[in-house]
Amino acid sequence: MRLTNFSDFAFRVLLFAAARPGRLITIDEIAETFDVSRAHLTKVVNTLTQTGYLKAYRGRSGGLALGKSPTDINLGDVLRATEPDFALVECMRSENHCVLTRACKLRGPMERALAAFQAELSRYTLADILLSETEFPS
Amino acid sequence: MRLTNFSDFAFRVLLFAAARPGRLITIDEIAETFDVSRAHLTKVVNTLTQTGYLKAYRGRSGGLALGKSPTDINLGDVLRATEPDFALVECMRSENHCVLTRACKLRGPMERALAAFQAELSRYTLADILLSETEFPS
Repeated sequence: MRLTNFSDFAFRVLLFAAARPGRLITIDEIAETFDVSRAHLTKVVNTLTQTGYLKAYRGRSGGLALGKSPTDINLGDVLRATEPDFALVECMRSENHCVLTRACKLRGPMERALAAFQAELSRYTLADILLSETEFPS
Repeated sequence: MRLTNFSDFAFRVLLFAAARPGRLITIDEIAETFDVSRAHLTKVVNTLTQTGYLKAYRGRSGGLALGKSPTDINLGDVLRATEPDFALVECMRSENHCVLTRACKLRGPMERALAAFQAELSRYTLADILLSETEFPS
């Protein structure tokens, strides 16, 4: 049971932006810091921009900044925006072929466990896990 | 965020065995019912046998049966036995290269969310989700 790397990097991008409140950041900077491909990071940034967690400023001196205050960036909400799905077992997916689906009682406990996960993660915002810029490698 | 197919099928195998308390079942039967490869299912059955959830009986009329009473088969414990890991983000894995690891505060909320997931799933045993044999396709 893992999150996607996409979500993992979304959290890192938000931490990176939150640690630099006075200025705009670039994908190149983030890619270099985390040693991750620019292409992968661009998709992550696009999702975070579309969902309002980041704001993109165009132009020669453009770049990215947090789109909301860290206290308004709920970690559970971020995860809901970045994970492709939370389909723990096959019957929770659209391409479901499990022959037990109609009678099966496993889905209930799975959904309640997932709800407990989300509820716990949603107790935190980005403000709770903020880092300062000096805590990033230079 | 998904479970592995391995865990998904482990739950199905246990449901299949629990629905046939009076007799031994075979991998061929389970493979046919769920339309899944015998090879994949053999690995699932091996893990369930090694962990005591199934018992294997050798010989010409051999086969498999539940190794414990359904009330003693906790769903959270089954998942712990079948998932390769619960390493939600990179710093929870042995092959961790995240440069934020030392300072990062994301791991705490992630671990608490995971604990909430496990605690909720562990409220249920196989007895809570039992099916009768007639609820399987013939």
